[in-house]
Amino acid sequence: MNIAIAQSGGPTCAINASLAGVIKEAFKNEKIDIVYGSINGIEGILNNEIIVLNNVFKTEEDFAVLMQTPATVLGSCRHKLPHLEDSPETFEKIIQKLEELNIGAFFYIGGNDSMDTVNKLSKYLKITGKDIKVIGIPKTIDNDLHITDHSPGFGSAAKFVATSMREIARDSSVYNLKSVTIVEIMGRHAGWLAASSAVLHALGEEAPHLVYLPECDFSIIRFLTDINKKLEETDTVIVAVSEGVRIKGADYMSEKKDNFGHAYLSGIGKYLEDIVSKETGCKVRSVELNVLQRCASHINSLTDISEAEAIGAEAVKVALQGETGKMMCFKRVSNNPYKIEFGTADANLIANSEKPLPREWINDDCNNIKDEALDYFLPLIQGECDIITELGLPKHFII
Amino acid sequence: MNIAIAQSGGPTCAINASLAGVIKEAFKNEKIDIVYGSINGIEGILNNEIIVLNNVFKTEEDFAVLMQTPATVLGSCRHKLPHLEDSPETFEKIIQKLEELNIGAFFYIGGNDSMDTVNKLSKYLKITGKDIKVIGIPKTIDNDLHITDHSPGFGSAAKFVATSMREIARDSSVYNLKSVTIVEIMGRHAGWLAASSAVLHALGEEAPHLVYLPECDFSIIRFLTDINKKLEETDTVIVAVSEGVRIKGADYMSEKKDNFGHAYLSGIGKYLEDIVSKETGCKVRSVELNVLQRCASHINSLTDISEAEAIGAEAVKVALQGETGKMMCFKRVSNNPYKIEFGTADANLIANSEKPLPREWINDDCNNIKDEALDYFLPLIQGECDIITELGLPKHFII
Repeated sequence: MNIAIAQSGGPTCAINASLAGVIKEAFKNEKIDIVYGSINGIEGILNNEIIVLNNVFKTEEDFAVLMQTPATVLGSCRHKLPHLEDSPETFEKIIQKLEELNIGAFFYIGGNDSMDTVNKLSKYLKITGKDIKVIGIPKTIDNDLHITDHSPGFGSAAKFVATSMREIARDSSVYNLKSVTIVEIMGRHAGWLAASSAVLHALGEEAPHLVYLPECDFSIIRFLTDINKKLEETDTVIVAVSEGVRIKGADYMSEKKDNFGHAYLSGIGKYLEDIVSKETGCKVRSVELNVLQRCASHINSLTDISEAEAIGAEAVKVALQGETGKMMCFKRVSNNPYKIEFGTADANLIANSEKPLPREWINDDCNNIKDEALDYFLPLIQGECDIITELGLPKHFII
Repeated sequence: MNIAIAQSGGPTCAINASLAGVIKEAFKNEKIDIVYGSINGIEGILNNEIIVLNNVFKTEEDFAVLMQTPATVLGSCRHKLPHLEDSPETFEKIIQKLEELNIGAFFYIGGNDSMDTVNKLSKYLKITGKDIKVIGIPKTIDNDLHITDHSPGFGSAAKFVATSMREIARDSSVYNLKSVTIVEIMGRHAGWLAASSAVLHALGEEAPHLVYLPECDFSIIRFLTDINKKLEETDTVIVAVSEGVRIKGADYMSEKKDNFGHAYLSGIGKYLEDIVSKETGCKVRSVELNVLQRCASHINSLTDISEAEAIGAEAVKVALQGETGKMMCFKRVSNNPYKIEFGTADANLIANSEKPLPREWINDDCNNIKDEALDYFLPLIQGECDIITELGLPKHFII
């Protein structure tokens, strides 16, 4: 039999590592002949943009470079499949293509929207009695997928955010004056990534002095009170703020919408910078870490990338065992020593919903992270990857 | 005799490496007893905030960690000394302190404003017949210091910018749609850092597709024409724009109002993002690399950090040879193999002035960098530093 794989949703640093995991495992398995790659997620199947990957990745270095390449080497999409009853012809078209290519298993690397695709497609296949397995492989820097302990891509994003936050703490404290630096961190609905910056506390850093997440209501007055209090205690105040914080009872910024109805948030950092500057009179700067959070693969977490590869390989085994309509999961066995196991969960339990940071990890004042959360975050950012360079820059794999 | 050292001006990733170079050389030299560090630049001398560094840095690892710590471990200042005739008492105060501590040489690591301090202070010392040498050690991510081939701190900033630009190029091209990504790069008066992102062309990358620098007048209409032309050629357009570009006859900083009626100023990147979005209708994003450009020491250039250390050591030798009122310089002997020599230049030739990027390195359309400039930039970003970590994050030295 043959298999097909595609990548979907927003970029991370670990999606290509999961791709590598699937391909390497498939190459090792005698039951699998051709590994097809669908270009731009499910759209490649629908539009017949499918390539044979067996000849693309040949050497160990090919895979090593692939695994340090951020984003999606096969492209991505934000294509949501219709409801089964609304457009059976869409599903027929996909299945026709999969059957034509003799696909026995289809792997979809993505977030909760992609798990919607895994769920719908696998259901349709079951209904129509087709023996094609569909397995989802998680990825998201937001870490907001249900059931799995964490998601590939998050650890590397968290390592970049914490490293940058530490560097910003040095940068912000050079002058003999009071200053506030606001670091805007990704996370539309859940504050995992902003919260993870608190790992610096385990190193004795006071930064981030304040942390604001979408899990709590956000009040400008309370925020300013927090800032003023911290400025009394220290000259340099570093604030981590999640892009998704919601000011209660106010629409504080303009929103653009993507195809899924998601709002693109931009500007909370700049917005708060302006307010703090006016209200405190001290030096204020905002830093939006922006897309670097999801693509700065030069500082990948070795733990994250190794796990991303492993979960891809595991997905192949699971499909061959006959499972379908599932997303691969991590179960955490222990923090110290850090140990995980693999599992699966029904994709419909993960699709279209976000897992918030546990409220008990946020302090009572809703402005910082409790130390007990650090045991969760720290293992995910451990280890550095050896980076293959060319002319002084990280090498990327481009198909 | 004793020596004193201070750090001044904006942070870079290489200032502490130059500090390490001075201290290590001083420790090796029998003529030098105590190495004093002035806190917050020249202000430490004026305010008597001076520490003995001999007991601060003890092991090889101390120095290694110091050299991977961004910003200024001794703090910094933006304190400009008055004209000699306006306030001789200021200079008297400095000299009194230096004599009290038996300082034979004072080292000032900084940019063109700091070289103004080196110039004025050394002149006053000469006039008053005091035998205290003053030597400037260059640093700036802007690379705009005259006479020296390049400045410590620039190579690491350029390596971060080019690495990030490459990662952003991957991140921006995942979807099957037209998009423009505008990367705002530091450089108020000179475009060296934005221009350096063109090293990606040597790797076969098309990004940056367009580059805009302060060295050319900037026209919105020409800019939009360039964008539209590129969008016809390719789906993903990546633009490098220097924060210092000046729109001819117009103040480019737009004042915006949010829903709360707060006005705030946005940078050139966000401003151009709005315009391109309105005029092209395609997906547009701006990324301000912000302070990470000058503090992302986790991806330092080994060449830069080694040179920063070496020029610090060289400064000690030069002072002991009797020179004063000079800034240390690099002279480039050859590009391939890359070879530099050290030299000195009168600090007054460097103070208060910026060196622009040579016009002949910019293309005729003023929207990209010619390949001949890459021979200049590439050697400066070569090599990676081994990073000492703790709990998965780069270790920093904090006094």
